[in-house]
Amino acid sequence: MESLVELSQEILTGGLKPTELVEKTLERIGRVNPEVNAFITVLEEHARLEASKAEKEIAEGRYRGPLHGIPVSVKDIVFIGGVRCTAGSKILAQHVAPYDATVTRRLKEAGAVIVGTNNLHEFASGVTSINPHYGPVRNPWNTRFIAGGSSGGSAAAVAAGLSTVSIGTDTSGSVRIPASLCGVVGLKPSFGRVSKHGVIPLSWSLDHVGILAGTVADAAVTLKAVAGYDPEDEYSVYAEVPDYPSLLEKDVEGLKVCLLGGMGPVDAEVLSAFKRFVRVLEGLGMTVDEVEFEYAGRVRECWAPIRLGEAAAFHDEWLRSRRGEYGPDVLSMLERGGRYTAVDYVKAVRLRHMIRGGVLRILDQYHAIVSPTTPLTAVEIGVTESEIDGKNIDIYSALTSQTILHNIIGIPSISIPAGLSSRGLPIGVQIAGRLYDEVTILRIAHQAARKMGTPSLRL
Amino acid sequence: MESLVELSQEILTGGLKPTELVEKTLERIGRVNPEVNAFITVLEEHARLEASKAEKEIAEGRYRGPLHGIPVSVKDIVFIGGVRCTAGSKILAQHVAPYDATVTRRLKEAGAVIVGTNNLHEFASGVTSINPHYGPVRNPWNTRFIAGGSSGGSAAAVAAGLSTVSIGTDTSGSVRIPASLCGVVGLKPSFGRVSKHGVIPLSWSLDHVGILAGTVADAAVTLKAVAGYDPEDEYSVYAEVPDYPSLLEKDVEGLKVCLLGGMGPVDAEVLSAFKRFVRVLEGLGMTVDEVEFEYAGRVRECWAPIRLGEAAAFHDEWLRSRRGEYGPDVLSMLERGGRYTAVDYVKAVRLRHMIRGGVLRILDQYHAIVSPTTPLTAVEIGVTESEIDGKNIDIYSALTSQTILHNIIGIPSISIPAGLSSRGLPIGVQIAGRLYDEVTILRIAHQAARKMGTPSLRL
Repeated sequence: MESLVELSQEILTGGLKPTELVEKTLERIGRVNPEVNAFITVLEEHARLEASKAEKEIAEGRYRGPLHGIPVSVKDIVFIGGVRCTAGSKILAQHVAPYDATVTRRLKEAGAVIVGTNNLHEFASGVTSINPHYGPVRNPWNTRFIAGGSSGGSAAAVAAGLSTVSIGTDTSGSVRIPASLCGVVGLKPSFGRVSKHGVIPLSWSLDHVGILAGTVADAAVTLKAVAGYDPEDEYSVYAEVPDYPSLLEKDVEGLKVCLLGGMGPVDAEVLSAFKRFVRVLEGLGMTVDEVEFEYAGRVRECWAPIRLGEAAAFHDEWLRSRRGEYGPDVLSMLERGGRYTAVDYVKAVRLRHMIRGGVLRILDQYHAIVSPTTPLTAVEIGVTESEIDGKNIDIYSALTSQTILHNIIGIPSISIPAGLSSRGLPIGVQIAGRLYDEVTILRIAHQAARKMGTPSLRL
Repeated sequence: MESLVELSQEILTGGLKPTELVEKTLERIGRVNPEVNAFITVLEEHARLEASKAEKEIAEGRYRGPLHGIPVSVKDIVFIGGVRCTAGSKILAQHVAPYDATVTRRLKEAGAVIVGTNNLHEFASGVTSINPHYGPVRNPWNTRFIAGGSSGGSAAAVAAGLSTVSIGTDTSGSVRIPASLCGVVGLKPSFGRVSKHGVIPLSWSLDHVGILAGTVADAAVTLKAVAGYDPEDEYSVYAEVPDYPSLLEKDVEGLKVCLLGGMGPVDAEVLSAFKRFVRVLEGLGMTVDEVEFEYAGRVRECWAPIRLGEAAAFHDEWLRSRRGEYGPDVLSMLERGGRYTAVDYVKAVRLRHMIRGGVLRILDQYHAIVSPTTPLTAVEIGVTESEIDGKNIDIYSALTSQTILHNIIGIPSISIPAGLSSRGLPIGVQIAGRLYDEVTILRIAHQAARKMGTPSLRL
């Protein structure tokens, strides 16, 4: 598949027309999506209209930038005004978004052509994207396997070339986990960097809007387009947005990177891919140390009351009135959330302050923290436990073991592909950086990915 | 009583020696405190030593600034390394502070002479300062009446001239309420402006360290000395500290001020004092409008789960192991806090965001919000309900009705004296401003207080 950067170059030089590109994309969706199930709503008519409009504007010299005329998609939890937004749920099956989310508006302003909304784990509350109402998202690398989640449809769509980039959300790893499992790039920017206005919440203090893309450069281009302060979002941060795409080539030599001890077991094949990644970083002139992290064993204790308690608060009314319409796994998590006390929640917030302090002290010494994104590659649809290092561990806990920490603190984090397993399934590695410093992790990711190569899927 | 500014002028010009001043203060404490009960620990020896040291330094030309050689006190919840810090509780009756709070350290660095620790409502969890373990603080204007709280000893000490300024804490109004009831100035700076490191918490997200002083200028001098970023306090804000004392005379003409509708009933005598205050503001060239505030009726709904839930989390272990050592009112509030669910807490936090948004939109249009500080003057010790406007209201709800909003949002707020009631008890009015803009409310308070005059207590 061609990258956004390549496609936009062809569009700009006249070698590719947006209307051709959108037709190719819609044809591909028609052919591949029935198997992969990455979309809930395909916006054929809208996409053709917008592609024509883009084509006309570009022909008239009104080029808006690299997203102009590019097919993109958004997770079906991000409002597109006038389009159904289900959040992957039965409860919102007929819900029409009353307005554009800020991120949707910014994509439209950049001239992107929205081709549809991506399937997801119900209410973004899970990591398999096995959706009881809209069917499971299937991994394009092997459709017997999960795509990961909750932004599973976004990752699968990008991996399968059904959209060039997709907007996802990430509360506990929901952008990075499916990116890892589907062999694409998944970027969770700093908390507050991308507006959440018009995005259905899961857990307000952990939710981030993020990006799924084929390359780091594509993610950088998209971030530049959608990032920025938004007075409509009370969590939005007033901070300048750097010109990410132009900063990717800045030398990374001398940067100090670390990995945290004690963050949980990792499958042997994933571990050896991660070690290759570490050698690539060293080859680029970085130092990589392992450091002790005193809170490694307490991350989930902090996360659970916050993640589950906030979700239970958002769903409080529906839990009373429409309880039977939830899938069993989502209902069970919401019920757990409803059982926490205020004291549990407040203690978790206190622990969060301590964990944040611990990580920020480490990030005083290091420019980035690296790890595998997921300790496993994709599992078969229906599998609920997996063995790592001789221990059985449920898939939810396993897949989120390396990602949750970055949601708790709000630091930027990116997953990039790091090769394929012996079964031909993608492996991902993760780079997290200092608060609001997406630039450094994008630079490292861009230069490391170039050395490692990106596995390419032929469909 | 002489103000800090006057005393420091006399010290600087050699007209007054710190050792004389401390002796006069200790003599006064010895004479007045047995009745007023404003102190838990008097540091006679320490104070004499520090006064001598200050005197020597000043004589040698090493003058540290306006607090040098000035007798101050701190609420007995603020650590003075090596000195007992009880928090007004039986549980901590023998607890010796392991280090100086940041605010204590800054007072010491400014050369202040700490004469003792002030009595308070047990664990700062109440507004009467009727302390079951250390006796009630009595209002110096009439010792049958409460001083207010929880920083009751701080306000009473300043009102009675037992210390020139005192450091208090304010979670729901605990600096401003006793200031109002004792006829002194009470300043709650912006959330995060003064470090809470070394201060025993009540409710982390509502707690502020504040200042009790005889005049606005004295509060400004003290704020300048103690404010500033502190990496030891995770709530500390990295923001420049203006030179408050030099900015007090800047013209207030043309400033726009408002009062919020629907904030609860106010006693007729307090209301007419407040109206006089409004006319004073208008006389200074300000406009005063009444504005609708859509969340006026929802402030307590937001406050209760946060205030009580956080306190219950801090006290969780002691509630199990030392339950019998709490006073009945404090225990009852802690138990209420323990009954809230995480969903209750999270909903309150969501409401807090909405209320904050509502107030910040008003503060886009207005420089300050004014109100009575308390809708009542002091009540007799033991009174638990009072009638306002024909309705019976419990004293806790009544006294906090005008103050809590500013804790929820974290905006700076100051109470200044506005005359005496027909029974000879002080009345206070309150000015709250934009986040981190203490300067504007200090200017308004300083210039309005000069017009209104400060009631002076002769003991």
